[in-house]
Amino acid sequence: MTTTSEFTDAPEPTSVANAHGGSVGVVHTQFMDFDEPLHLSSGHTLPSYRLAIETYGELNADASNAVLICHALNASHHVAGISAENPDDIGWWDNMVGPGKPVDTNRFFVIGVNNLGSCFGSTGPATIRAETGKPWGAAFPVLTVEDWVRAQARVADRLGIRRLAAIMGGSLGGMQALSWAITCPDRIAHCVVIASTPRLSAQNIGFNEVARRAIITDPDFHGGDYYAHNTVPRHGLSVARMVGHITYLSDDDMAEKFGRTQREPPEGGAFHYGYGVEFEVESYLRYQGEKFSRYFDANTYLLITRALDYFDPARETGGDIARALAPATADFLLVSFTTDWRFPPARSREIVQALLKNAQPATYAEIDAPHGHDAFLLDDARYHALMRAYFDRIAVAIGLESLTELQP
Amino acid sequence: MTTTSEFTDAPEPTSVANAHGGSVGVVHTQFMDFDEPLHLSSGHTLPSYRLAIETYGELNADASNAVLICHALNASHHVAGISAENPDDIGWWDNMVGPGKPVDTNRFFVIGVNNLGSCFGSTGPATIRAETGKPWGAAFPVLTVEDWVRAQARVADRLGIRRLAAIMGGSLGGMQALSWAITCPDRIAHCVVIASTPRLSAQNIGFNEVARRAIITDPDFHGGDYYAHNTVPRHGLSVARMVGHITYLSDDDMAEKFGRTQREPPEGGAFHYGYGVEFEVESYLRYQGEKFSRYFDANTYLLITRALDYFDPARETGGDIARALAPATADFLLVSFTTDWRFPPARSREIVQALLKNAQPATYAEIDAPHGHDAFLLDDARYHALMRAYFDRIAVAIGLESLTELQP
Repeated sequence: MTTTSEFTDAPEPTSVANAHGGSVGVVHTQFMDFDEPLHLSSGHTLPSYRLAIETYGELNADASNAVLICHALNASHHVAGISAENPDDIGWWDNMVGPGKPVDTNRFFVIGVNNLGSCFGSTGPATIRAETGKPWGAAFPVLTVEDWVRAQARVADRLGIRRLAAIMGGSLGGMQALSWAITCPDRIAHCVVIASTPRLSAQNIGFNEVARRAIITDPDFHGGDYYAHNTVPRHGLSVARMVGHITYLSDDDMAEKFGRTQREPPEGGAFHYGYGVEFEVESYLRYQGEKFSRYFDANTYLLITRALDYFDPARETGGDIARALAPATADFLLVSFTTDWRFPPARSREIVQALLKNAQPATYAEIDAPHGHDAFLLDDARYHALMRAYFDRIAVAIGLESLTELQP
Repeated sequence: MTTTSEFTDAPEPTSVANAHGGSVGVVHTQFMDFDEPLHLSSGHTLPSYRLAIETYGELNADASNAVLICHALNASHHVAGISAENPDDIGWWDNMVGPGKPVDTNRFFVIGVNNLGSCFGSTGPATIRAETGKPWGAAFPVLTVEDWVRAQARVADRLGIRRLAAIMGGSLGGMQALSWAITCPDRIAHCVVIASTPRLSAQNIGFNEVARRAIITDPDFHGGDYYAHNTVPRHGLSVARMVGHITYLSDDDMAEKFGRTQREPPEGGAFHYGYGVEFEVESYLRYQGEKFSRYFDANTYLLITRALDYFDPARETGGDIARALAPATADFLLVSFTTDWRFPPARSREIVQALLKNAQPATYAEIDAPHGHDAFLLDDARYHALMRAYFDRIAVAIGLESLTELQP
């Protein structure tokens, strides 16, 4: 299988042009249909399902250069490049993945998979169910990170990849990388876990629950079967996104971006003295919430926040993360960001300490960045230099390049 | 005017018995009606209004021993003792105020006022408006901290108190204390500002806006006139309270209280794999949200969060807090708590530094307490010892006691 990416002469959107390295260009979504039943953590079975994927770069002859990128809550398989369907739709990690970028598509074959249960082309709650001719809705099973890993492993099988050069993800994506390392140790060589955690804290679960309550108590939710009512719980989904968004940014970053700046201060007066938009931060959050509620599926939001809550590989080892990680054989890179208060550095250090306890190979970087949890998506020079160096090392480790070739 | 408190022989509820010192006993709400129009920051005028108050202890002959306690978002005039209407209703700062307690009602005459716009007996959005015979609803004016101070000053007038021995408040209550110190410097001797801030951050405003959107987009809100529709935006108010509640607790405190404990784990299985209550923290937050939505008025929630957003005494001094505080003549006590991430110690330090810059008398304590923002309401030994010592000093300063008498 080769990539469907192609270069284009169209002017590169800003996010591509600003990054070091080039763009993978225009990319087309591919679909993979699976007819083998997938047994889920919940005990349910999905008889068949479809996954949306994108790939960039070329798989080499011995299928040793594949990198799987796992996405977080609201992202998709569209990791890099320009969507063939919408030229304004740039991949969510386009600054990281592309020719000459830290994850260099001139060397690596990169795979993005839209997770099962999501709403960007893979089978999920909004998908028409063959048995009923209606959307799954509330009947769609609750999924776990481990279920996603099982589904992703089949994508690798289908692509003829026995062992991945690396799995990589930020936040919830990092949890998937961790899960791969634990549950399929012989299938991955490197595990890159960025801005993640071995399990959610009570506060993390609390924020997820606020989001879910906002959605579920929206009268337009109809118990999850809103498709049949031609409604969407947009208000609830919007509130859910707003609260999520605050947790992605640092306090300092919000102060820097918005401060107490007023949106349109009244002439002569101090404030409008009402409940409309008064401060820039309100305008920003409302806009983010409303935009999100127009394209994201509410049931998917429930499903993914629940997968976050449930993730806890050390659950079966009495909370002992080292024991949970013991089966892993990959080389680990862990990255955290100082101002991330959603999954703060201390959570990454728990993983690092567990790996060190097991004498497993691990590199850890704590990046001093002001942008909170969202920093993992941003183009920070030290962060990207680190990623570049680590992927250079991967290239050497899997025999793509010699160390001599890498030197300038 | 004397207190209406009286001791009771009924068994003391736990919160009273656990505290050092005694209870003020059963207390009755008093009402004060004001017919002088109140000019508001917004430019509107309230022609008349009622305030609910409670008082504890006795006002001395020269009316020099009065302490005004200002409340935060969801509290009321019922600061201490047992409500005459409901024996389970213990005052929200009962561990702080009472005979022998840090704010000792054997020495001080303590006043609690339910702020204008609130929903515990004072005129607010749910009050029947004389002009229309209907509840104010959306027509009730937006209020500011400065408006509350003006209304509270009239309570002091009515009680015959020219100068208060102290104003004291936590969180939003601390903002009122600050505002008193700036706008009525000759009327207060001491200003006690606990777990507060000179102004909200963008993140603080963001969380308030999430809460307001949850309420306003609830279809039962009816633009604020839900009283006329015999509805209450309970779902929105519940979500608002849940998100607020998370910000009152520290991450560590939530971890300690709830961790990842499951509410009712299924027999034999790991999880229920659904969106009902799975973790204790979900159960707790839902309960808090639902309870709150049964007794609190949604319009009041909007109004008070907006007053929080607007508070910024340094707005007219180009952001210079020292210049804003320059008119104050009170002696200040500032207290913050290390794990408070809503109004962290750094925010209190801004106030302290401004006071020091002005060579104004200030004492500052940063209490190492695990309970986040809520710590200001809790019975922490070091915190209460500090408060006791400071109020001893106040007693000496206003001539209630000599230093000799205070020594054991």
